[in-house]
Amino acid sequence: MKALVYHGPGQKSWEEVPDPQIQAPTDVIVQVDTTTICGTDLHILKGDVPAVTPGRVLGHEAVGTITEVGDAVTTLEVGDRVIVSCIKSCGKCTFCKDGIYAHCLGDEGASGVGWVLGHLIDGTQAEYLRVPYAENSVYKVPAGVPDDHAIMLSDILPTGFEIGVLYGQVKPGDVIAVVGAGPIGLATMMTAGLQGASRIIAIDLDANRREQAHKFGATHDVDPAAADWKEQIFALTDGLGVDVAIEAVGIPATFDTCIKIVRPGGNVANVGVHGKAVELPLQDLWIHNINISMGLVNTNTLAMLLNLVAEKKLPVDLLATHHFTLDQMMDAYDTFARAAQTKALKVVISR
Amino acid sequence: MKALVYHGPGQKSWEEVPDPQIQAPTDVIVQVDTTTICGTDLHILKGDVPAVTPGRVLGHEAVGTITEVGDAVTTLEVGDRVIVSCIKSCGKCTFCKDGIYAHCLGDEGASGVGWVLGHLIDGTQAEYLRVPYAENSVYKVPAGVPDDHAIMLSDILPTGFEIGVLYGQVKPGDVIAVVGAGPIGLATMMTAGLQGASRIIAIDLDANRREQAHKFGATHDVDPAAADWKEQIFALTDGLGVDVAIEAVGIPATFDTCIKIVRPGGNVANVGVHGKAVELPLQDLWIHNINISMGLVNTNTLAMLLNLVAEKKLPVDLLATHHFTLDQMMDAYDTFARAAQTKALKVVISR
Amino acid sequence: MKALVYHGPGQKSWEEVPDPQIQAPTDVIVQVDTTTICGTDLHILKGDVPAVTPGRVLGHEAVGTITEVGDAVTTLEVGDRVIVSCIKSCGKCTFCKDGIYAHCLGDEGASGVGWVLGHLIDGTQAEYLRVPYAENSVYKVPAGVPDDHAIMLSDILPTGFEIGVLYGQVKPGDVIAVVGAGPIGLATMMTAGLQGASRIIAIDLDANRREQAHKFGATHDVDPAAADWKEQIFALTDGLGVDVAIEAVGIPATFDTCIKIVRPGGNVANVGVHGKAVELPLQDLWIHNINISMGLVNTNTLAMLLNLVAEKKLPVDLLATHHFTLDQMMDAYDTFARAAQTKALKVVISR
Amino acid sequence: MKALVYHGPGQKSWEEVPDPQIQAPTDVIVQVDTTTICGTDLHILKGDVPAVTPGRVLGHEAVGTITEVGDAVTTLEVGDRVIVSCIKSCGKCTFCKDGIYAHCLGDEGASGVGWVLGHLIDGTQAEYLRVPYAENSVYKVPAGVPDDHAIMLSDILPTGFEIGVLYGQVKPGDVIAVVGAGPIGLATMMTAGLQGASRIIAIDLDANRREQAHKFGATHDVDPAAADWKEQIFALTDGLGVDVAIEAVGIPATFDTCIKIVRPGGNVANVGVHGKAVELPLQDLWIHNINISMGLVNTNTLAMLLNLVAEKKLPVDLLATHHFTLDQMMDAYDTFARAAQTKALKVVISR
Repeated sequence: MKALVYHGPGQKSWEEVPDPQIQAPTDVIVQVDTTTICGTDLHILKGDVPAVTPGRVLGHEAVGTITEVGDAVTTLEVGDRVIVSCIKSCGKCTFCKDGIYAHCLGDEGASGVGWVLGHLIDGTQAEYLRVPYAENSVYKVPAGVPDDHAIMLSDILPTGFEIGVLYGQVKPGDVIAVVGAGPIGLATMMTAGLQGASRIIAIDLDANRREQAHKFGATHDVDPAAADWKEQIFALTDGLGVDVAIEAVGIPATFDTCIKIVRPGGNVANVGVHGKAVELPLQDLWIHNINISMGLVNTNTLAMLLNLVAEKKLPVDLLATHHFTLDQMMDAYDTFARAAQTKALKVVISR
Repeated sequence: MKALVYHGPGQKSWEEVPDPQIQAPTDVIVQVDTTTICGTDLHILKGDVPAVTPGRVLGHEAVGTITEVGDAVTTLEVGDRVIVSCIKSCGKCTFCKDGIYAHCLGDEGASGVGWVLGHLIDGTQAEYLRVPYAENSVYKVPAGVPDDHAIMLSDILPTGFEIGVLYGQVKPGDVIAVVGAGPIGLATMMTAGLQGASRIIAIDLDANRREQAHKFGATHDVDPAAADWKEQIFALTDGLGVDVAIEAVGIPATFDTCIKIVRPGGNVANVGVHGKAVELPLQDLWIHNINISMGLVNTNTLAMLLNLVAEKKLPVDLLATHHFTLDQMMDAYDTFARAAQTKALKVVISR
Repeated sequence: MKALVYHGPGQKSWEEVPDPQIQAPTDVIVQVDTTTICGTDLHILKGDVPAVTPGRVLGHEAVGTITEVGDAVTTLEVGDRVIVSCIKSCGKCTFCKDGIYAHCLGDEGASGVGWVLGHLIDGTQAEYLRVPYAENSVYKVPAGVPDDHAIMLSDILPTGFEIGVLYGQVKPGDVIAVVGAGPIGLATMMTAGLQGASRIIAIDLDANRREQAHKFGATHDVDPAAADWKEQIFALTDGLGVDVAIEAVGIPATFDTCIKIVRPGGNVANVGVHGKAVELPLQDLWIHNINISMGLVNTNTLAMLLNLVAEKKLPVDLLATHHFTLDQMMDAYDTFARAAQTKALKVVISR
Repeated sequence: MKALVYHGPGQKSWEEVPDPQIQAPTDVIVQVDTTTICGTDLHILKGDVPAVTPGRVLGHEAVGTITEVGDAVTTLEVGDRVIVSCIKSCGKCTFCKDGIYAHCLGDEGASGVGWVLGHLIDGTQAEYLRVPYAENSVYKVPAGVPDDHAIMLSDILPTGFEIGVLYGQVKPGDVIAVVGAGPIGLATMMTAGLQGASRIIAIDLDANRREQAHKFGATHDVDPAAADWKEQIFALTDGLGVDVAIEAVGIPATFDTCIKIVRPGGNVANVGVHGKAVELPLQDLWIHNINISMGLVNTNTLAMLLNLVAEKKLPVDLLATHHFTLDQMMDAYDTFARAAQTKALKVVISR
């Protein structure tokens, strides 16, 4: 089959590789009908994730059709159209029983952390894919949900909802701020209404993104380069700060923004992937009665969010800005890598 | 009356001052029957809390008898024996209605933060005391609860329970670690059983404190100076880390200890009062699915904890290691300030 | 002033009565700008609520302007435009501190239950009104919220949200059924989205009401007189029943409907006011893992819902179907009493 | 092998039956080391549970040693010493993923309800046992936990904790009443401290049981035959009723007792197995702000409770009042059936 193969920093190709095979009785093989590219894939290509070794097929998001099932698989059949979660979960370990799939102890990938596809084992940017622990890791797609909606359930929509909205403990009537209006920030805004957010403030340096954010649920936007940015935000609250500040970038400056705008009794939810430490001003914060959460998505809300997508309760189609076929994979990467110019949010790549 | 007056860094005296007067219709005057000294008072005396100005009567913990009530006070009477909360709360503002008394917006003290006694207004280390917003800030003591038990409800017991145990989300069966076995750490250990903690690990450099901790509920103890301290802690869990790590010291090293021992899906609860920033290794933690809480006590569990003390469900008497009379106030300070030698936990100072 | 006075079963008149006076220092006097009629008022007029004695001014919902404040009132001023909650709450008792305002122990009305206006003391269907415990019982109206929106916050909107949605523990993705599409059922449907309900099924015998329900958030409707009504409802779920069934009528048949359609692990929330006992088939239900809630509104979400109304997040204007002036009070009653013909939901009566 | 076989109402025998065989790849075979008898077994023998057909091996509680594992079982091995949960759970269905194992949709037993052992398939009162969905239904016993402690984890301890304490939402400081001081009531009292109950009131007609209850955590007891029983209970609260009333008998009178003593804002948790309907006085309760829960145990707290038993935090040994060997099975039934005379709580039957 053809697949997108990583050959070390800066090098990748769409090339012929061996077809995946069932390795454990809990595996299934999936024909990839649709996949996409994540910012993390770009990080891997820069060489930022050394655990990814040359020869690895990249990608951790897919919608596809099951072509083969392992002997222990009883709840899935050949021909089932499924979403593949970006997280593997054995369904049996301590963490899986608690719903913390992100830290599944199942031995596939041997990492202790649930993201293995396109990381520690071959991934989804290929014509076929082996999915370990399939019964707990794939979800049947209801009729009427097209691939370019379903693909957003693999990672981005659950991440925004679980790590931003749920970990941030958004509750009815809350004023929330989302720092960073890229794809993951937009997925957070899109799902914040499920917990009854009142005002949703999009904070981003890019004017176009701030404007786009309103389509995804933002009710207000603030340019953090404005001299009075903080006053603008506080003016959108009762003067005491936001109930929940959600970090959706992954750098110290945006984390610090969240700390500065959260009210006493409020929450900071970190969604961004960080590359270095941040300074936490505990000398001021110890008395501030706030809560700071962080984590990798569990996708344990995937089935619920999929129902909402099927009900057309979430404008998930707006994320799919560009479409490609699998053999245009290299073009898709090019478009996604130049998102600032192409205004790409998610590129959808289909058979 | 006589009171302990702050006269600038390093200077204090037990001296004659004017009797307190009712200033607002929601005030009461309390004759102080018992008070105590908090570590914060020592910080003030070092000059670390510049908001405290010379001439201020110190102290924020008291049990006493009401001698006068303001015109708007209907639920309290002269002669009522009451515990004075260390936190003032108007009971009417946004924060008070949400139970976040620590951030009461009532104008007394004009600080926005609920700790005002012995800080922004005169405090409890005196023969008499004015208590603002009294109906929401004092609690009647049931018959049978002696002063030296009741005094622990003003601050230390609610702080350990609310900021350590509740903010830390301790749940039945949890293995928890308390870093720091001083008075506040011990109050945390004493109340952790209320949420069903299974193992309670006391972590402290001082061997005597580690040993004492077992009387307060610790089931295990670890010396953080041991080469294998971390292995010892992980061996007391299922190998994955503690469910809840509670910081009860207030320095970067102990905060860092908590971060190092908490399991994925777990909580770090900061109870300590910090004087400087800490480094938060978000490059490692973003994927770790943990939660970090912090804050000033609300004392909104005071009434509940008082019931438990009345039921003799908490060994609160063990905290009262030394007893003095009010006119021995200077001696009491001396004993408390030399806690390492005197092994003082709380010094109880009574009329 | 003029007021609507109850003169025993079936008898009422809009007549001259003495102006209300401040009786306690926590009272305020409010000029009634807008009031409305509740189904409960009709019950009183039938003689169903013997605690209401002849001579009583009826009504428990109002928006108005403060004309006088008691001596202990510091957070309200003459001229403030306020919503009057249907529930009095002293803000100081055990129940008030827990947010269970419905069971306030404050002595006004001496009933132990928070609904006193137009019940145990004179009510809102008058030109002026005395509000006890005013600081905890009235809410300032933000500029831009008209009276006919604000009036829905006195009772109906908080009741639907608190007793239907919150007590029913609606959560994102839930399929819920609301049995009864009258005003309170519609208020429930209108607020169910705040907790992320996916499908909202309106169940009512009246075809017009079922149709109207869709404007208030219903996504589906079912006629309970249909032979296959239960199958229709189950077909709208995954075949296992609804997550939450909300009773919004108050008779045994509709309560029984809820019991029949709730799934294992689900909730039945009773909102209706019942006049007789129901049979609970515990021989079947003990094994069914369900939860049944019930209660009088606390209005402790009033401020939050008011913010959402100010943000235009709730189509609250749709409830106000008919408008009258205060001196048309008798006509307003007539229109509301014949709701089946007039299709009245809420009649708005303004100065 | 030998087993206790049901032969229709009133008839049973300890007789030779075929050894159980692996039927599905997710099965294991367990040598029964210890089993016990439940009140439900007596109901079956009376003919009250028609789904149990003649020829069925009874019993749903066991501790044993795995002798054979199915092909899909990877986390268990021959020789493992395990507790068998009374509930089968596939671990994959909607309900299992939500932790509602009691309503597992897995097809074993085809009932939709998780209790199948000794009900729809052969049970534990035998020398060997087939356990379906073993990986999610058995739990390894830590060294140091003897069989007569471990056996209490199969059903009784999780039932008391989950359906009484957790469903009842017991929280720190609560005053709770347990109506019925039989084995399941005692298991509830024993675990109520894990959620911080302050006072635990045992209510039972039998003076001996009331006295015994104190060993299991009861702090007070009340005889419901006393003329002033209700006054006695209210006097143990603040006069407003208990926070949580737990029904542990299963008849209308005891359910009614719970309804009468619960305070506004409180919870009634039904644990008893009921044979007929009860009358729910909604005309009084609709305004009372209470919550009524009920259900079959999920045993999703089994692992946690097992840790606490291993830590010796629960006096579980007190439940095992009588000991027998497997070949004394008929005597064990006799002793258990005459509990009023023998004062048997749980009879432990070991190899």
